[in-house]
Amino acid sequence: MSEKMTVIVFSDDLDRALAAFNLANTGASMGMEVTMFFTFWGLGVIKKERVARGDKSFMQWAMGLMKRGSARRLKMSQMNMLGFGTSTMKSMMKTYRMPSLQEGIALAKEQGVKFMACTTSMALMGLTRDDFIDEVDDVAGAATYLGIASEGKVNLFI
Amino acid sequence: MSEKMTVIVFSDDLDRALAAFNLANTGASMGMEVTMFFTFWGLGVIKKERVARGDKSFMQWAMGLMKRGSARRLKMSQMNMLGFGTSTMKSMMKTYRMPSLQEGIALAKEQGVKFMACTTSMALMGLTRDDFIDEVDDVAGAATYLGIASEGKVNLFI
Amino acid sequence: MSEKMTVIVFSDDLDRALAAFNLANTGASMGMEVTMFFTFWGLGVIKKERVARGDKSFMQWAMGLMKRGSARRLKMSQMNMLGFGTSTMKSMMKTYRMPSLQEGIALAKEQGVKFMACTTSMALMGLTRDDFIDEVDDVAGAATYLGIASEGKVNLFI
Repeated sequence: MSEKMTVIVFSDDLDRALAAFNLANTGASMGMEVTMFFTFWGLGVIKKERVARGDKSFMQWAMGLMKRGSARRLKMSQMNMLGFGTSTMKSMMKTYRMPSLQEGIALAKEQGVKFMACTTSMALMGLTRDDFIDEVDDVAGAATYLGIASEGKVNLFI
Repeated sequence: MSEKMTVIVFSDDLDRALAAFNLANTGASMGMEVTMFFTFWGLGVIKKERVARGDKSFMQWAMGLMKRGSARRLKMSQMNMLGFGTSTMKSMMKTYRMPSLQEGIALAKEQGVKFMACTTSMALMGLTRDDFIDEVDDVAGAATYLGIASEGKVNLFI
Repeated sequence: MSEKMTVIVFSDDLDRALAAFNLANTGASMGMEVTMFFTFWGLGVIKKERVARGDKSFMQWAMGLMKRGSARRLKMSQMNMLGFGTSTMKSMMKTYRMPSLQEGIALAKEQGVKFMACTTSMALMGLTRDDFIDEVDDVAGAATYLGIASEGKVNLFI
């Protein structure tokens, strides 16, 4: 049986999301069975660019507009000043041929990394399965995550 | 012997504290033996609302006033603008019947989750056992934490 | 064989770096085999105070000037206001005889903690081995880190 690894993606900072996918993709390329559990702000990483109003309350809807999320829109946690920041990072990544976040997501799916969205956070933010990109395998609670995590040794909260 | 799990609570952001208690409580409900180690800003989560001056230096005392802490007063790490933020989150949690941080703390104790306060951080901030809520089981150093962590596989730094 | 422990140092916040070294040094003093993997902003913790222009692009060079890094220059993640902040913390640490970050680094090396700098982040920021302090043992990718992490149970992302 192959080694298991889990990554909790709690943040929607671009830098932390990139680190999460870099670690997950490296683990998968080494034959590890990798699960990513997207929770709280981390749900923004796997949101579609356009989220429907659906049954969201006004608060949930308004919050969704302010925190648009989606892999393409995430911002760095630091250095958002003087023009050095998200766009600089993206252009430097291109120069040095590093995978963008979208490419990291695609690569993860190709390699069989499992994407789980946290049901508790979804309920809080009024998000449903349809608000996420197709790459998401499953919606599940913390118990499912912990069941998987307790079978492996590399369990990171990012 | 039941599976062990540890959570280092380093932050006093409301969102991170909620995530820590959600994971700890889920683990405990699955029969895991859960230890939470509160360190640095995380000590704010378990502080009483009123902390006595005691032997604190002026700096420690003044810092305590600025960082009042206590579960009831914590703030979100993001979105503290336009009124969407801590109070929005709290009212949404109420609407969706999610446990507040205080309820999370009570539930954790009910389920036997162990609370440890980090002695090094306490010394730095001039806090003593009496400055914490009764739910805290123990004050201990990083060695005690690592001894427990190395017996389990789910060890998260939040 | 002694227990293994890894710490990913992702952040260059002084408080998080201190927590990372406190945990790593405690683990080492208990006989654990500890590896610290410095990635992204965390590279700032192990940068020399003066980094040469070398082959850096203009963007990398300019970014380096804005994020000077080096253990001596790191700042707290919070409380950088009203004079309570980095300098207060440092003077309180001195009063309570806690090791500074530089002392934590020295102690870690004395105890055989291994320092690895992440090659992917280095490429992105245009940093080479020469830009880091001598204490760094190795430059390596995420695969090397994961190989070590999967042999231990205490694997923290800070």
